Amino acid sequence: MTDASPTAAVLIIGDEVLSGRTQDTNLNTIARFLAAMGIDLMEARTVGDRREQIIAALNALRGGHDYVFTTGGIGPTHDDITAECVAEAFGVALPEHPEALAILERRYGEAFNAARRRMARIPEGGVLIANPVTDAPGFQIGNVFVMAGVPKIMTAMLEDVAPRLRSGAVVHSRTVRVAGVGEGAIADLLTAAAQARRDLSFGSYPFGHGSVGEVGTNLVVRGRDEAALQEAATNLLAGLKALGIEAVLEG
Amino acid sequence: MTDASPTAAVLIIGDEVLSGRTQDTNLNTIARFLAAMGIDLMEARTVGDRREQIIAALNALRGGHDYVFTTGGIGPTHDDITAECVAEAFGVALPEHPEALAILERRYGEAFNAARRRMARIPEGGVLIANPVTDAPGFQIGNVFVMAGVPKIMTAMLEDVAPRLRSGAVVHSRTVRVAGVGEGAIADLLTAAAQARRDLSFGSYPFGHGSVGEVGTNLVVRGRDEAALQEAATNLLAGLKALGIEAVLEG
Repeated sequence: MTDASPTAAVLIIGDEVLSGRTQDTNLNTIARFLAAMGIDLMEARTVGDRREQIIAALNALRGGHDYVFTTGGIGPTHDDITAECVAEAFGVALPEHPEALAILERRYGEAFNAARRRMARIPEGGVLIANPVTDAPGFQIGNVFVMAGVPKIMTAMLEDVAPRLRSGAVVHSRTVRVAGVGEGAIADLLTAAAQARRDLSFGSYPFGHGSVGEVGTNLVVRGRDEAALQEAATNLLAGLKALGIEAVLEG
Repeated sequence: MTDASPTAAVLIIGDEVLSGRTQDTNLNTIARFLAAMGIDLMEARTVGDRREQIIAALNALRGGHDYVFTTGGIGPTHDDITAECVAEAFGVALPEHPEALAILERRYGEAFNAARRRMARIPEGGVLIANPVTDAPGFQIGNVFVMAGVPKIMTAMLEDVAPRLRSGAVVHSRTVRVAGVGEGAIADLLTAAAQARRDLSFGSYPFGHGSVGEVGTNLVVRGRDEAALQEAATNLLAGLKALGIEAVLEG
């Protein structure tokens, strides 16, 4: 990982995730999106719909990373408090944004009411993030991108966010699949490989534990230098072969 | 939520979650487990396999909550550094635990090697958490429960953790399913309901956005008092009916 790569954090906002009602998938979507742009996702936090907690987490994360992505809490109901928390974290007002207001009026027509009008409130200085699914926009303020919690909408919003981000060198990976052998049997080999190439990261992910299916380990090498990566993966394969262990480079 | 209910936090440890390679499901499993025990899950953090980050997050969380549950990083390979981070966070040594050593020797027999022996290191004062899937134990130290990252193993470990936790009054819920109406149309009703019953929590979760399928909103009322919950849900139904909106109590 070079020093020049931007870093990011994710803040997931919503009681429904912490109560277990909802399995979050937005973190994984954002993680893949950032990986493809060469931005290093460093941490994520999940908080409930609680004002102090949202503000504290947001301030901690936005000070420590180039970008922060939040999901959830920007709808029309009383528990949607993300916009006001972001405004408070930045110390700015929360006026109605003329463009957001126009978008929502167009969307709802006769059905535009006070609750829906809440969604036009954008922290001062905020720039809208387009929502091609249900129109109600997200927004960017400083290095913080505030997006919807509904996965389909959040994913669509990332399209509008992408051009605003500085990308880094993409981290590539190679996976060496080792069937029939637990990670403890090949840990020494992996440790030696990791020590030899400190510019790459080596991970070990067992699969098939305790089931009747196949048991084994995926060794994943990650790094920004494709040639170094290929060499490391090839060396791992050779090392495994020398131990009499079958393995396949899965690319 | 009464003051007497224990609170908890989750710390998910692993580069594979932040790189997008793995969709975490452990948070949801733990959230449901805690909900069933009446323990309030207040926040979760996800960090990579980085020493300083793990220690800082662990110390922040264990000081703020009754219980902390960690997942990941307790295997035999070089990137499994959770045990040493926990030891450092607590300021204790990381000796081999005789019982853990015996378990691992029994498990691996001839194949017991130095890498696997790493898994016998337990922070001083730690109590083992049984792993009925692959034997290598997790551990509890103080209010921190250190578990595996593999979902099947983590889930099994919760069985051994459960009897050690103080349970609270369980939070129950009622879901009112409103078909064909977006949450903005019923936000005022929901706000009034929430203001009338501040001991309950009212959430609004739209579904079917932008797809060709059914669009609507699930209103979820949560609370520890079943009678109050039932009354609030019934009132919501009546209020929706008065607006000419069809809804179903899903229980």
